[in-house]
Amino acid sequence: MNNSAIGVFDSGMGGLTCVKELHSLMPNENIIYFGDTARIPYGTRSRETIMKYAAQDIALMKKHDVKMIIAACGTVSSVVGMEKKDADGIPFTGVLLPTVQAACAKTRNGKVGVIGTSATIKSGSFAKAIRTIKPSISVVGAACPMFVPLVENGFSDRDNKVAQLVAAQYLEPLKREGVDTLILGCTHYPILHDVIADCMGEGVELISTGSEAAKFACAYLTRHDMLAERETDGEISFYSSDSTEMFRENAESFLGEKIKGSVTKVEMEELTSLA
Amino acid sequence: MNNSAIGVFDSGMGGLTCVKELHSLMPNENIIYFGDTARIPYGTRSRETIMKYAAQDIALMKKHDVKMIIAACGTVSSVVGMEKKDADGIPFTGVLLPTVQAACAKTRNGKVGVIGTSATIKSGSFAKAIRTIKPSISVVGAACPMFVPLVENGFSDRDNKVAQLVAAQYLEPLKREGVDTLILGCTHYPILHDVIADCMGEGVELISTGSEAAKFACAYLTRHDMLAERETDGEISFYSSDSTEMFRENAESFLGEKIKGSVTKVEMEELTSLA
Repeated sequence: MNNSAIGVFDSGMGGLTCVKELHSLMPNENIIYFGDTARIPYGTRSRETIMKYAAQDIALMKKHDVKMIIAACGTVSSVVGMEKKDADGIPFTGVLLPTVQAACAKTRNGKVGVIGTSATIKSGSFAKAIRTIKPSISVVGAACPMFVPLVENGFSDRDNKVAQLVAAQYLEPLKREGVDTLILGCTHYPILHDVIADCMGEGVELISTGSEAAKFACAYLTRHDMLAERETDGEISFYSSDSTEMFRENAESFLGEKIKGSVTKVEMEELTSLA
Repeated sequence: MNNSAIGVFDSGMGGLTCVKELHSLMPNENIIYFGDTARIPYGTRSRETIMKYAAQDIALMKKHDVKMIIAACGTVSSVVGMEKKDADGIPFTGVLLPTVQAACAKTRNGKVGVIGTSATIKSGSFAKAIRTIKPSISVVGAACPMFVPLVENGFSDRDNKVAQLVAAQYLEPLKREGVDTLILGCTHYPILHDVIADCMGEGVELISTGSEAAKFACAYLTRHDMLAERETDGEISFYSSDSTEMFRENAESFLGEKIKGSVTKVEMEELTSLA
């Protein structure tokens, strides 16, 4: 038993898709979420800068004495890699391992597609991770750098022509290869689920990183007897590096409901001094 | 006569459109450019965060002993406002005053449109500035938050369908109002010039902020006898807060040519410690 909170961080709001799933799987758990909204997006930055930001995000989580840290961010997970399994003794997971395990279990024709930010696809991390688990699977990747701005600016409805056009352009190589399983390698992408599903056509299974990371964390905490023992619903506390009001306004589309808990500002000076 | 450099900064690469014009108007001037590529974009962040980032950018310029500072960034200019005319004794200009002066001189029907980032349009700064100069002019603003990602991800050719669709949606209210002059209130937007011009139709004059800021600086330095006296071409030195390689790769589309001078990394710790 362990009543400490689960720590989740992301470059912005996308990781809230993971929080939503965590809360649904383990309603009694306290969760601490940090969205680095003053420095979003991570996915177009250099490896060096992403590593530095991630180290600061992890240090912030540790300050809050969490029992497990989830990098609910495809970019950070890709750059950090699959080997990192703890942060100074605190269990750690990115979205990489949980997601590729799900993809390997689900594909029937052995062709898996991966979409993500430029940094994620450039790292080749999902393809490498899949090959480690099941070398016979062929992997096709495509960077979709416009997907995050589309989501953040409201171009995400199923019938949105702009989203459809951009998706058609980015996903064309994956359709040509005939993948039957598609990893949405960025926690923003579930918001574009319908547009992506329509474009890929029937019979292609979409895998959401945030959701798989949440299932992975649930299994880990259960296996290690680290679940909270609490009669009531757990508390979710939110932290953001930019305006807390903006965070509240934008959270609903990722979380599926309005934020009930507190949102606290993390000053940039604090963040950069941490690691 | 003053042989110090002119300092120009922006959230990223867009301000290079101003550097290009400065170098063309005053080829003998040294120019120092800083692009805050580790924290781009500014335009979707809160006023408080933008003010902090701008203060740090200005402090960095001052460290380099420049003779004039240009905030070649529509968002910073809007948030800082038109009143700021020096930074501890160093002449300062944003793009606001130069651009609205040009717009007021050019409009024939007294209807001016302004497009920019969410922060720029929300601030209402261009409209206020225009009313100060010529209260009879009516101003229509439209936030175009997708334009920066479109430019940064290569969706900017004249015949690009995605860019055309997004432009049609954003610019519709300005067309309906019949503006004859349109301020491109973000230094990224000149890259979308053709798409915007086609959408607005003939007879609408587009005003580029970077270019107007450069003309303003040239006039200021001439009037105050602060031009450089140098036989040879001036040097342009570049600084960026993210990868200098990425900066080099992306600069050409804004600068119109490959970077000849040096590109130096500014560490985030240095930047946040400055102001």
